[in-house]
Amino acid sequence: MPRIVRKVRPGAPPGALTTPRQRVDKVEIEVVCYDLQGVRELEVDTIEQAFAAIEESSVTWINVVGLHDVEQLHKLGHHFGIHPLALEDVVNVGQRPAMHEYDDHLYVILRLPILGESLEIEQISVFFGRGIVITLQEVPGDPWDPVREAIRGGGGNVRRLGADYLAYRLIDSVIDSLYPILETYGERIEELEQSLLQGADAAILGDVQRIKHDLLWIRRTAWPHRELASQLERTDNPLITAATREYLRDLYEHCVQLMDVTDTFRELARGLTDLYMSTASNRMNEVMKVLTIMASIFIPLTFIAGVYGMNFNPNSSSFNMPELNWAWGYPLALGSMAAIAVGMVVFFKLKRWL
Amino acid sequence: MPRIVRKVRPGAPPGALTTPRQRVDKVEIEVVCYDLQGVRELEVDTIEQAFAAIEESSVTWINVVGLHDVEQLHKLGHHFGIHPLALEDVVNVGQRPAMHEYDDHLYVILRLPILGESLEIEQISVFFGRGIVITLQEVPGDPWDPVREAIRGGGGNVRRLGADYLAYRLIDSVIDSLYPILETYGERIEELEQSLLQGADAAILGDVQRIKHDLLWIRRTAWPHRELASQLERTDNPLITAATREYLRDLYEHCVQLMDVTDTFRELARGLTDLYMSTASNRMNEVMKVLTIMASIFIPLTFIAGVYGMNFNPNSSSFNMPELNWAWGYPLALGSMAAIAVGMVVFFKLKRWL
Amino acid sequence: MPRIVRKVRPGAPPGALTTPRQRVDKVEIEVVCYDLQGVRELEVDTIEQAFAAIEESSVTWINVVGLHDVEQLHKLGHHFGIHPLALEDVVNVGQRPAMHEYDDHLYVILRLPILGESLEIEQISVFFGRGIVITLQEVPGDPWDPVREAIRGGGGNVRRLGADYLAYRLIDSVIDSLYPILETYGERIEELEQSLLQGADAAILGDVQRIKHDLLWIRRTAWPHRELASQLERTDNPLITAATREYLRDLYEHCVQLMDVTDTFRELARGLTDLYMSTASNRMNEVMKVLTIMASIFIPLTFIAGVYGMNFNPNSSSFNMPELNWAWGYPLALGSMAAIAVGMVVFFKLKRWL
Amino acid sequence: MPRIVRKVRPGAPPGALTTPRQRVDKVEIEVVCYDLQGVRELEVDTIEQAFAAIEESSVTWINVVGLHDVEQLHKLGHHFGIHPLALEDVVNVGQRPAMHEYDDHLYVILRLPILGESLEIEQISVFFGRGIVITLQEVPGDPWDPVREAIRGGGGNVRRLGADYLAYRLIDSVIDSLYPILETYGERIEELEQSLLQGADAAILGDVQRIKHDLLWIRRTAWPHRELASQLERTDNPLITAATREYLRDLYEHCVQLMDVTDTFRELARGLTDLYMSTASNRMNEVMKVLTIMASIFIPLTFIAGVYGMNFNPNSSSFNMPELNWAWGYPLALGSMAAIAVGMVVFFKLKRWL
Amino acid sequence: MPRIVRKVRPGAPPGALTTPRQRVDKVEIEVVCYDLQGVRELEVDTIEQAFAAIEESSVTWINVVGLHDVEQLHKLGHHFGIHPLALEDVVNVGQRPAMHEYDDHLYVILRLPILGESLEIEQISVFFGRGIVITLQEVPGDPWDPVREAIRGGGGNVRRLGADYLAYRLIDSVIDSLYPILETYGERIEELEQSLLQGADAAILGDVQRIKHDLLWIRRTAWPHRELASQLERTDNPLITAATREYLRDLYEHCVQLMDVTDTFRELARGLTDLYMSTASNRMNEVMKVLTIMASIFIPLTFIAGVYGMNFNPNSSSFNMPELNWAWGYPLALGSMAAIAVGMVVFFKLKRWL
Repeated sequence: MPRIVRKVRPGAPPGALTTPRQRVDKVEIEVVCYDLQGVRELEVDTIEQAFAAIEESSVTWINVVGLHDVEQLHKLGHHFGIHPLALEDVVNVGQRPAMHEYDDHLYVILRLPILGESLEIEQISVFFGRGIVITLQEVPGDPWDPVREAIRGGGGNVRRLGADYLAYRLIDSVIDSLYPILETYGERIEELEQSLLQGADAAILGDVQRIKHDLLWIRRTAWPHRELASQLERTDNPLITAATREYLRDLYEHCVQLMDVTDTFRELARGLTDLYMSTASNRMNEVMKVLTIMASIFIPLTFIAGVYGMNFNPNSSSFNMPELNWAWGYPLALGSMAAIAVGMVVFFKLKRWL
Repeated sequence: MPRIVRKVRPGAPPGALTTPRQRVDKVEIEVVCYDLQGVRELEVDTIEQAFAAIEESSVTWINVVGLHDVEQLHKLGHHFGIHPLALEDVVNVGQRPAMHEYDDHLYVILRLPILGESLEIEQISVFFGRGIVITLQEVPGDPWDPVREAIRGGGGNVRRLGADYLAYRLIDSVIDSLYPILETYGERIEELEQSLLQGADAAILGDVQRIKHDLLWIRRTAWPHRELASQLERTDNPLITAATREYLRDLYEHCVQLMDVTDTFRELARGLTDLYMSTASNRMNEVMKVLTIMASIFIPLTFIAGVYGMNFNPNSSSFNMPELNWAWGYPLALGSMAAIAVGMVVFFKLKRWL
Repeated sequence: MPRIVRKVRPGAPPGALTTPRQRVDKVEIEVVCYDLQGVRELEVDTIEQAFAAIEESSVTWINVVGLHDVEQLHKLGHHFGIHPLALEDVVNVGQRPAMHEYDDHLYVILRLPILGESLEIEQISVFFGRGIVITLQEVPGDPWDPVREAIRGGGGNVRRLGADYLAYRLIDSVIDSLYPILETYGERIEELEQSLLQGADAAILGDVQRIKHDLLWIRRTAWPHRELASQLERTDNPLITAATREYLRDLYEHCVQLMDVTDTFRELARGLTDLYMSTASNRMNEVMKVLTIMASIFIPLTFIAGVYGMNFNPNSSSFNMPELNWAWGYPLALGSMAAIAVGMVVFFKLKRWL
Repeated sequence: MPRIVRKVRPGAPPGALTTPRQRVDKVEIEVVCYDLQGVRELEVDTIEQAFAAIEESSVTWINVVGLHDVEQLHKLGHHFGIHPLALEDVVNVGQRPAMHEYDDHLYVILRLPILGESLEIEQISVFFGRGIVITLQEVPGDPWDPVREAIRGGGGNVRRLGADYLAYRLIDSVIDSLYPILETYGERIEELEQSLLQGADAAILGDVQRIKHDLLWIRRTAWPHRELASQLERTDNPLITAATREYLRDLYEHCVQLMDVTDTFRELARGLTDLYMSTASNRMNEVMKVLTIMASIFIPLTFIAGVYGMNFNPNSSSFNMPELNWAWGYPLALGSMAAIAVGMVVFFKLKRWL
Repeated sequence: MPRIVRKVRPGAPPGALTTPRQRVDKVEIEVVCYDLQGVRELEVDTIEQAFAAIEESSVTWINVVGLHDVEQLHKLGHHFGIHPLALEDVVNVGQRPAMHEYDDHLYVILRLPILGESLEIEQISVFFGRGIVITLQEVPGDPWDPVREAIRGGGGNVRRLGADYLAYRLIDSVIDSLYPILETYGERIEELEQSLLQGADAAILGDVQRIKHDLLWIRRTAWPHRELASQLERTDNPLITAATREYLRDLYEHCVQLMDVTDTFRELARGLTDLYMSTASNRMNEVMKVLTIMASIFIPLTFIAGVYGMNFNPNSSSFNMPELNWAWGYPLALGSMAAIAVGMVVFFKLKRWL
């Protein structure tokens, strides 16, 4: 189960940085500077090197992977004038997706779902201001390679429009990365449904439970993104230009569609439990029928055989089991057994159990 | 399961055209030009031929079937000044129904359900501006024959009112095509309900599941159409004339009614699973009763027969099975068996199991 | 299942009249003219006769039963200037309850539930303007006799206030006619609940299903009436006088109360399925207990009897069934059987199965 | 089931008084006049006597119990200028709680739940204007004794503030009387839950059903009270003074809290059915295990005993049941039976059924 | 079950103090005075001592534990001019979280969940005005130690900002104290889910029920806190400074996130019951299969053994059980039994029961 529960010790002073569980050995900092003329990409080790790389009159994207080095974050915060509460949210990696507006920058918290062995949901922080976009996350593996290629390629709008458009592209990529994951779940649901209709066994229950779980967490992740996209579209913050605003409308619609698909899949997943119960009840019915048919046919026959296995002494009186000495006694007994068996079969046929 | 999941590669630059899976061999272009005086219908091969056919002072409807020829779409987009994002939505055939307003045209995305072997949901794009309506879709088979006949016939409003009324008629036809499909589902639900009440078997579960599935997708398709109709009615875009606006109110009400029917059917379909469980539980009860009655009657009898089949030696002592040598031993044994059987039957009668 | 699905052929031109399934042989037209001084009631055959009967300075109510005569409807529409879309809605008897405002008249679509063998929901159209109320419906059997009597009697407000008050009274009567029907369903639900708690059989399932069905359709019928009543109350149309408006607030509250009762009954009906499952599960438990008790007691006994029915030769060795020749062999065997039986009964007593 | 369905004959003229089912022999009228100086309490027989008792410059509370005497109600209505529709609502004791504002008085309809053998919900009407509060109800047994004592005692605000504060106190008392009733239901739910977890039998189902029923009706009663309280708080009617308005905010919060508790209890009650099904399924499982264990152990043993009870003639050939004449035949048979029994027990231990 | 039902006797005069169930022996009063220069902490016995300790130009926090001493509360109320209705809410410890604004102070009611043996929910009242914060609660054990340390330490904002910030910190600590509790429930749910998938027994049902219970109460507790946080953020009360307002936005988001987590956990808990039913149904199926397989294999064999245990006299005629004297009779009988057993096993293999 992904954990989104806030880790902060209750009552801890707001603004204090508690680092998340360290998951990379070393902070990696990637700096991408570009304008219409060209692109410069750097991998640097310290945040100061990143500051040095920022040029005037171009867009700079600083991508920090690894949040455990509080020192560097403080420097970053100080250099760009980031609010302490925002920095706290960066490292407390259990925040809801949200947008916070500050004087000269916007802060967007995103949650990136990653589907490996199990579903994990990582937090990505995006700050953007005039000419600068800063992204921060704890784990490597971002969905931004197409954006990097678009910057390098120079086609499209990314080099032409400013930092706000870059931020939009980064946010859009994070949100879009849910689509292939959702499609995977859609396929799994369909497979499970087919298995259930063909009479799958109980091992399927764990799978159904896992899918329900994951879709619930995906929904919880997607829901505030929609809110966030709506806020981004509606804000009159001058940091967002009219050219980019057009695209933000699209972003909101992606989120709505995503919620939509998630809800549909959740409803389908809920249907799987019902389907399991129905098919289980059906299989139980079948098992019971076989038992009932076998028992109902043979129990009376065994009783008859039991009767003629009794040891009453035919010599004591002529009432005592005279059948045993009849010439046709045995064939008659077998015949009556056969008649009873046939009768039961006909009865079950009439009841449509056979 | 219809797929509405966005196919675009995450992070792909907005505005890039990715063609959908090709489903017609050749792009078919139909051009219908009409005014109050007359109608001209053409089937052309290239989009340039369509441009040539457009006349001044009349309404032109260009209907493109087949979206895989990106070249032609680009030409179309360029000729009519269609926004790149709109063109992208035309070919990414997994869009939510929506309305987008541009400077000199409106763009409406519709989703047309087609009920063949299974339910499929196709995307139809409708652009309309002054004197021009363009419709685009990937698969042939549109619901517009009555509109074509109305244009040819010349009665009614279609020839009198402008391109916006034609667009309304086309949109209305797409939405109305859900009604006969819904009615089919309504009938299936009623059939299934009858079968279940008459004790249908488990094969019905797959049908119920399919119907639930399809109604869920129909709802998802219908829902944004309502939103769309509401937007169309409320927009103050001068491309929509007052005469047409009157009809758009009707369009919205059709959508609401449609949602309504869909929701009712979904609730009925949900009820089918409950009904199945109830009848299954009921059948199980019946099976169990038969087994219990058979077993409860014969098990004691078989026990008695077993007792008198024991081989204790009556000669060893007078305590050892003296019944075997009684003159009335056998009739007494049979009699007590009959008494027990009658007793059990009376017991089950009292319990109302018989 | 009542059908509310629109019957119009998809794509049919709006405004074309498609007559509903004819259910009366002949159109019946009732004309009631009244003012404070007196009342005149007529039964006429053609709509022209009705026109002739309208007098100046009084309220006229034209009640048309039978909608299959398109000719007469066209004349009616033409005479009173009714909008073609409104006339289309009159004959397409699957409309949602709604209010449409036109220049000099209001058009109200109502749905009247009729509970005979099964629940049917008929459409009633009410037009009202200055001094005129027109009601149209396909089937005879309206709930308006008390209104007719009130007009004849002359007491109360109906003769004093105008056509809008008459329309209110007619609409109120249609909506109020749901109350006795709902009460019938309430009683049925309570009966079914009692039967279920007393252990009713599965035949009840069909009844529960029918009630759920009907309540769902009643809700669907009542819901838009509420909307309609709210619109009527809020509209500032001069056709509705202040005196009548006071009463329309009451109308809205009746609708709300009606929805309320319907929802309560639906929730109770949903509870019936749960109750059935609970009681069925309970009965199954009882059946299983009887079987288990019978089997568990007699199976060990029968086994013992079987052992002493074996034919091992006691003469071969002294290990071979020496019990058979013991003087107390048989009593001991019977005694051990009795002990086992008592033991099982005690066991079941401890488990509280007995 | 309490009946809230409107009793009026459909189509009956609004304003006509239909008396409710008479439940007191005689109308009882209580008159309480008070001001800061003192209190005067009277029991009178006719409404005229009540009128006579009203004094200038004080607050008068007229409490009428028994609504069957239409004559008196008409007099009351006439004397205080009560609207005919309001009087109709007083006697049609199935109204939703609501507030109606008239020129010089407010009319508040309340519903008082009374928990005796079963839950009953009575209607109480409260009119208040300048210096006068009139309460009307059909059945005796109001929750107002503490208010009476407060008036007599003279402490607190009741004697200091006007008729509106008295009305608030009366309304608050009616609403507060739901709290102890709800607490009773809360305790019952907890008892039932405990019983179910300790394996209660099916007799509990009726209780669960009754509680669900009652909570549903309590909710339906409480819901419009909240609406009513909100209206009372928000209205700018000069009959409500600023001093009282402060308290009305509290009234609204009481209602919200009450709804809250009701909803929580309803959710708990819904959980009881699930719990019953779970425990029932669990008990069934136990029963089945006992049966299966008994049958599975003894059926093979009985079969072996049956085999050696066969009468094949060992003298015909050496293949025919030579075991019967073996010296160790019987001990071997018993031994193999014991081995099988032990094997089955081990098997069931492994399956954790034992 | 925590009790939130209002304890006030219905009809009791508003403003009268009814003390809650006494749970501490003695009222404990803690006074903390601080400004930027320093901190003074006192434990006093009477409220007058607390008044004496208040200094000019600093923030004073009076924390009262124990509400049973009405006398002291009256003094407190009188000294700080607290509204009688507010004091009533302090001691009626079943209030909804809410904010009430008075002339010179705000009153905030909070509910603190405490997870010991079972979940308990205590009421905490927070009053704050200029330079003064008063907190009142019945039971010891508050979540404010970090706040106390922050005051003592002097770092951060608490000593710099005023009483409103202190109030925010206290409220935030109360709300945050739900996080570790929720995490505990999340872990329990996951454990239960694992147990269920591994086939846990019915003892788990009580645990599931308890968790559902508690989460329902937590939700009911958290829900109005959100409302409260939103009110605090939006109010334009001058008692809340701009510096603090920034933090109140954060408070609201904490509440939203908390509701979110609670709802997710509730949905997971609801899934547990479904999962139990599914696994129970699955286990039942397994039990039934074992029974059916055992019975179906051995019942026919036992029947054959029974047949050859019959005592028909082979000497009476050649039809009477000639098999008994066949040389290969016994081996043939055993062989046919083996064949039947193998046949049944193959049948069950085909049915995939084995």
